[in-house]
Amino acid sequence: MYVLTVAYGRPEDAEAFDRHYARVHRPLAERVPGLVGFSARHCSALDGSEPPYYLVAELSFLTEDSLTEALSSPEGQAAAADLENFADGGVTMFVQYD
Amino acid sequence: MYVLTVAYGRPEDAEAFDRHYARVHRPLAERVPGLVGFSARHCSALDGSEPPYYLVAELSFLTEDSLTEALSSPEGQAAAADLENFADGGVTMFVQYD
Repeated sequence: MYVLTVAYGRPEDAEAFDRHYARVHRPLAERVPGLVGFSARHCSALDGSEPPYYLVAELSFLTEDSLTEALSSPEGQAAAADLENFADGGVTMFVQYD
Repeated sequence: MYVLTVAYGRPEDAEAFDRHYARVHRPLAERVPGLVGFSARHCSALDGSEPPYYLVAELSFLTEDSLTEALSSPEGQAAAADLENFADGGVTMFVQYD
């Protein structure tokens, strides 16, 4: 599995972030071709302190090629372009693979 | 789902890390009570640069209570105690929940 991991830093306005994520960004991300699994979860620290990320989304693909194709697809480009509309706490992206 | 996320920084000796992880740490982690899902995947960056983590493990639990109980169980304590034996690149832990 190839899991595109999108880790969002804490936004200035969490409520606005959540609203935009649910109504706009998540539907854009779920439209990406080749996607075989999707999760988006808020984060907490084990000790009640500030976690390193506010929300982590994981987009799963069966192969590295399908992940690469998804990113360069019109749907992938639209999702990437939308980041600047709400992700003001920063975005850390990487791939988990096995 | 409550997903304990354990993100390992790049170790000094990746081969030794992988060996210890596969032979010792993963079996310890998989013995933790209440676990309903487990993955451990190496990481890469999208652009070929250094990813933020070397390996990410995700341990899934059905409830927050079962995650808390797992951490304080003898098996959880044994897994935590083992970290110092191989995780010399640092460990970032947080919970993803929905």
